Amino acid sequence: MFCLKLNIKTMKQTLYILSLLLFFGCKTEKKASEIIKQNEFAIIIHGGAGTILKKNLTPEKEAAYKAKLEEAIRIGHTILKNGGTSGDAVVKTIQVMEESPLFNAGKGAVFTNDETNELDASFMDGKTLNAGAVAGVKDIKSPIEAARTVMTDSEHVMLSGKGASIFAKEKGLEIVDPSYFYTERRFKSLQRIKDKEKTELDHDEDKKVAFYDADIKNAKFGTVGCVALDKNGNISAGTSTGGMTNKRWGRIGDSPIIGSGTYANNLTCGVSSTGWGEYFIRAQVAYDISAQMEYQHKSLKEATKDVIQNKLTKLGGTGGVVALDKNGNMSFEFNTAGMYRASMNDKGTLIVKIYKD
Amino acid sequence: MFCLKLNIKTMKQTLYILSLLLFFGCKTEKKASEIIKQNEFAIIIHGGAGTILKKNLTPEKEAAYKAKLEEAIRIGHTILKNGGTSGDAVVKTIQVMEESPLFNAGKGAVFTNDETNELDASFMDGKTLNAGAVAGVKDIKSPIEAARTVMTDSEHVMLSGKGASIFAKEKGLEIVDPSYFYTERRFKSLQRIKDKEKTELDHDEDKKVAFYDADIKNAKFGTVGCVALDKNGNISAGTSTGGMTNKRWGRIGDSPIIGSGTYANNLTCGVSSTGWGEYFIRAQVAYDISAQMEYQHKSLKEATKDVIQNKLTKLGGTGGVVALDKNGNMSFEFNTAGMYRASMNDKGTLIVKIYKD
Repeated sequence: MFCLKLNIKTMKQTLYILSLLLFFGCKTEKKASEIIKQNEFAIIIHGGAGTILKKNLTPEKEAAYKAKLEEAIRIGHTILKNGGTSGDAVVKTIQVMEESPLFNAGKGAVFTNDETNELDASFMDGKTLNAGAVAGVKDIKSPIEAARTVMTDSEHVMLSGKGASIFAKEKGLEIVDPSYFYTERRFKSLQRIKDKEKTELDHDEDKKVAFYDADIKNAKFGTVGCVALDKNGNISAGTSTGGMTNKRWGRIGDSPIIGSGTYANNLTCGVSSTGWGEYFIRAQVAYDISAQMEYQHKSLKEATKDVIQNKLTKLGGTGGVVALDKNGNMSFEFNTAGMYRASMNDKGTLIVKIYKD
Repeated sequence: MFCLKLNIKTMKQTLYILSLLLFFGCKTEKKASEIIKQNEFAIIIHGGAGTILKKNLTPEKEAAYKAKLEEAIRIGHTILKNGGTSGDAVVKTIQVMEESPLFNAGKGAVFTNDETNELDASFMDGKTLNAGAVAGVKDIKSPIEAARTVMTDSEHVMLSGKGASIFAKEKGLEIVDPSYFYTERRFKSLQRIKDKEKTELDHDEDKKVAFYDADIKNAKFGTVGCVALDKNGNISAGTSTGGMTNKRWGRIGDSPIIGSGTYANNLTCGVSSTGWGEYFIRAQVAYDISAQMEYQHKSLKEATKDVIQNKLTKLGGTGGVVALDKNGNMSFEFNTAGMYRASMNDKGTLIVKIYKD
């Protein structure tokens, strides 16, 4: 029993302090229930993050990026508006970006050290927590479609290399000649980086050369991704990439890794990442945002901010995420100079941005 | 200001209720500081989980498994006792299991549908949160050593296929002829499962056939793993596997996935998983245990129990983990009939078990 002898003044003070402690100490516990439904449906995308500065982009190129982001997001938005699934919206939206040479995914993917294109993608369904991914594929036209098909048409989550192509073929997905992914711009990037390697090998910096050149950095970070919430409250997320210019040794980044590049859970949020993949794996970026919302009852904004600006940044990682929660709140968060990005809510309000606000 | 007019009795009651609320409402917040250091150093291992029943194991086989588990863990324990690093303890311990045909890792790995052995492994350093992994390698003698070398000697986290082998060769790791991994027992398992596929294809169950046969199930779950805490308070974790019998399409399971098969963080814990990999990826098993400890202030036991018995089980996944926290507490947790496992603390107390308690 509680049986301290207190005079009224002391008791009042204690009561006051206890009330304050209770209010502030357990404050985060209450947040989840306070959140109001923002959007019945919503969609958010990125086309990569990096050292994207206004001075480095011509007005024409800036306009081209913005137009393609808008074209892509409107495809998904229309699907959602018409009552379609978030899964369809994510795949169809990403396919627009995969087919554009502007982004480092599908056509326009960067080149490996072997002068090939090796593509990675992943997809997750927030309702069932089922997921699919492909890694290191060279001839599947739409890696994001392949990732979703791994989820729907196999018992597996992740397929890789030639085996993934055989699977895709068996399931009737479009296979293309590897030359389909060739773009002159990306091929020149590879040559430039290889030249740099040659001249800088004596400076013991060969390991870091991929991250010197701003343009190469951008290329490296050019991953595309999409997260959508549909009218049934289902969240889906997807990510597709060509990986890192000059990559070798069959390197796999975060894009095909569930929990790092992509995560979706109807109870919390959906996330797609873009950035220096190794750090996104080590920091468990995509799932960590969901975990902070579930376990610490943080808002989407608080969770994305902590994971990118605090945890990832402390580790030395650079990049960003687009994320969306079950109430249709949306968040762009990045620690780079810019991120190609767009969002659209249920009222049709469109945001398309490249640089920091 | 707090200025409600209350009589003493009401005030006393309110004070009592508030105290209770404060105590129970915020109880979990306090747990972390209450934990006492259990062991200065410690090591815990698994050799796979599955439908391992006493009736299916001969006394000779049971003794062989126990002897090999003991041999392996004593290697790591000696390293830790002599002031060595947890990283060395993890790699050397796992290598004993990789070299034994008893386990589905290294020699003794299961066969793919193509009658090859494709090995996966991952390693994480809890001090730096750095990590390394290899996926789908066919000729690296020690995949766990390769995984750690990806961490220490490259800027990458995950390398795959032939590229990973080229990397391993460049770094001077031992390359073997793929026939090194051949064992008659595993080859027969593959033939048996292929025969089953043929006879059962008409029953529309072909997708699930890999999970019918108890012996095949065990083989599938025969992944090995180790987590260690050294005298400097550093946690390391590693996992190595041959994957799933009859796997095709370049399937990658959870073992090489940081956050699913392996995770380590000096602030929380280290984890190595074994089980039906796809579910371990979807449930983010290894990192989720760390996240629950960090964000919900759960004990290691509470976190491993929730992730395996609640979250993973609800999703339909089977398997288990071995885990160890920064205070040297250790936990075996699995939802299968058995798990080959062992632990050793700083007093040299050895536990070796196979079945449920």
